[in-house]
Amino acid sequence: AVNGKRLWSSLMEMAEIGGTAKGGCNRQALTEEDKTGRELFIRWCEEIGCTLRVDQMGNLFLRMAGSDNSLPPVLMGSHLDTQPTGGKFDGVYGVLGGLEVLRTIYDAGITPKHPIEVAVWTNEEGARFSPAMIGSGVWCGEFDLAYGHARTDKQGVSIKQALESIGYLGTEPCQPFPVKAAFELHIEQGPILESIGKPIGVVKGVQGMRWYDLIIDGQPVHAGPTPMEQRRDPFMAQAAIVSELYALAATHSPWARATFGDIKAEPGSRNTVPARLTMAVDLRHPDQNILSEMDTKFREIAKKHCDKFGLTYEIKDEWNSPAVQFNSDCIDAVRDATEAQGYAYEEMFSGAGHDSVYTSRVIPTSMIFIPCEKGISHNEAENATPEDIEAGCNVLLGAVLKMANA
Amino acid sequence: AVNGKRLWSSLMEMAEIGGTAKGGCNRQALTEEDKTGRELFIRWCEEIGCTLRVDQMGNLFLRMAGSDNSLPPVLMGSHLDTQPTGGKFDGVYGVLGGLEVLRTIYDAGITPKHPIEVAVWTNEEGARFSPAMIGSGVWCGEFDLAYGHARTDKQGVSIKQALESIGYLGTEPCQPFPVKAAFELHIEQGPILESIGKPIGVVKGVQGMRWYDLIIDGQPVHAGPTPMEQRRDPFMAQAAIVSELYALAATHSPWARATFGDIKAEPGSRNTVPARLTMAVDLRHPDQNILSEMDTKFREIAKKHCDKFGLTYEIKDEWNSPAVQFNSDCIDAVRDATEAQGYAYEEMFSGAGHDSVYTSRVIPTSMIFIPCEKGISHNEAENATPEDIEAGCNVLLGAVLKMANA
Ligand SMILES: NC(=O)NCCC(=O)O
Ligand SMILES: NC(=O)NCCC(=O)O
Repeated sequence: AVNGKRLWSSLMEMAEIGGTAKGGCNRQALTEEDKTGRELFIRWCEEIGCTLRVDQMGNLFLRMAGSDNSLPPVLMGSHLDTQPTGGKFDGVYGVLGGLEVLRTIYDAGITPKHPIEVAVWTNEEGARFSPAMIGSGVWCGEFDLAYGHARTDKQGVSIKQALESIGYLGTEPCQPFPVKAAFELHIEQGPILESIGKPIGVVKGVQGMRWYDLIIDGQPVHAGPTPMEQRRDPFMAQAAIVSELYALAATHSPWARATFGDIKAEPGSRNTVPARLTMAVDLRHPDQNILSEMDTKFREIAKKHCDKFGLTYEIKDEWNSPAVQFNSDCIDAVRDATEAQGYAYEEMFSGAGHDSVYTSRVIPTSMIFIPCEKGISHNEAENATPEDIEAGCNVLLGAVLKMANA
Repeated sequence: AVNGKRLWSSLMEMAEIGGTAKGGCNRQALTEEDKTGRELFIRWCEEIGCTLRVDQMGNLFLRMAGSDNSLPPVLMGSHLDTQPTGGKFDGVYGVLGGLEVLRTIYDAGITPKHPIEVAVWTNEEGARFSPAMIGSGVWCGEFDLAYGHARTDKQGVSIKQALESIGYLGTEPCQPFPVKAAFELHIEQGPILESIGKPIGVVKGVQGMRWYDLIIDGQPVHAGPTPMEQRRDPFMAQAAIVSELYALAATHSPWARATFGDIKAEPGSRNTVPARLTMAVDLRHPDQNILSEMDTKFREIAKKHCDKFGLTYEIKDEWNSPAVQFNSDCIDAVRDATEAQGYAYEEMFSGAGHDSVYTSRVIPTSMIFIPCEKGISHNEAENATPEDIEAGCNVLLGAVLKMANA
């Protein structure tokens, strides 16, 4: 069994890097904080004899040798980047849970047949660079390397520039290699496990999600003398579109999601009708057909309201991640490990995207969830109990050892 | 009569300072461009023998001596700052129209009894620093100097710092001095004069206006796993409030105005429900009672929707500029000058705020309007005809000479 106390204290130590006044974490992808977090993690892995590879997207692979190193590794891991006002567990738990599995094996003095690796994927959150999961996305072939390198943050800094500036533009090709099985341990980021009082989620897949930029162009005019009827005001459409998308999500309750995480007005002057509004739109549903229907409806709704108010608009497709089914052998290994250790569990789907969405396209993959307090994530108050943290890591250990010795 | 060609060419020369690719102007208050514009204007005035005073808010007063300099001056002027995507005429016309009056008097070799001054008021637009008209506002006593100096832009730079950095933190006290009469020449910034085909607006007052920051606080959570019913999402209230404020303005059609010029989401991450939305709200009506009613309704509407979605909120009062009636002697002087020169005119109220709102509290004040193309202002496409530009300036000359020789 893993050392729950050690895992917890590693989580707390990592959380100090980018730690916020409200007890959360701001360690966005490829910042100085990310660099410091990577260095700490690499040091911890090297202390137990692991070796490092860095690929062209800055993804890290920390490898513990097996007894037969010609065999493909078993893979664990997740991401170390956080939201701007993120928590201590999202992603980090999967990485440090992987480390705790390696430490446990190391302390036990055993050498499994297969090598075991922990991956740290670059820019999973999609907060600094859109889209999310771009490190694993390039690795699996969903995006090409040039696209991955060229994505920019709000200040115009590209991923390639950011990788260079923190010293993590690696030389290993960013492409799939043979893997025996991959497991990602994560907090649920939703309320299901907590509400049913079970410590383990056996994750069978991930819902579909689409990201857009809705750009509405109007006519900038003076807020005072210009009659309301003569305006072409982007806010007139924005308010109507947002309300109607919430209503659309409600017609597909309880599973559909509609979120607007960011918005910008240009020129952004109090007494000028905006020339342009740019709003981030995030639509999700576990059923790919319903998500496609929501996509179609969104386009109709945007057109209807922009036409009505004489506005031009553009819907920029930022990301399209269809619903995913995980590998049944991996799901079985997680279920078996859970049952063997006597934990209560629920079979479930993920509402959030994870690097496993992309790895599952090319290597056998599944995930393990644990509850998080009130289902709250992407929030500095994100929390999980030491007991659940330990339980999830024990399940990971069991699933990994089974595959690594098979 | 004034030299219309010379006035036009001065307007075009000034427009090059901060000139934009789309033919507009970005010469925001207290920037390097504003400094360059001020220097050009001061040089032009000094070429015809005017003397400069700069007050503690960076307001400029350029004085041409009269035959009896113990008499109070007649004042002209407006502002040289622009919107971020502004035009060539808003404000600048009133300043350079004043210069053209002085040049005409200078060329004619006459010396009116009263001295004549052109004022350039700091930060009229309210685009870089809120509220608008703060230079004239401090001068008239509406705001105290400490408040004026402490206002900051979006980057946190204060007016005092900005004044120092462009070298226009003057030593003259920013307070009223005796003035015989003040006239502000301006484009209408609305569609009335153009639609009725008259070149001159005899402006009798200004409508009431209120600025607010509406701050809505929600709970940041993950866009994927979090059920819609469990969210406290500021956008749910924002969309409903915006729609209902447009409906409120429609019930007071055609005079009421509701404008949302800027909005910000925090943390501004695509897959996180915003923790906070901050939206600029601008409400106006010429009838002070109706504006007060709109203010009350706005507070009710914000409360209703924020309560409904479990959100906390704050309405920050940024600015409250009640409806204004101008001085009847000044209005008469403008009407007389218009009639004497045979121009068609309309008596009207202003939909935009102007420095005259504040000067009128302490010195006799009125305004002269000319049409602008399609009523469009606060837009790079802002335009006016050379004929109307000349006509308005001739009316200004007539009104000023009448007062300066009285
Ligand atoms: N787990 C997580 O926060 N992923 C980010 C991608 C998403 O938006 O679902
Ligand atoms: N004239 C003008 O654009 N004034 C700015 C103040 C306002 O918003 O009315």
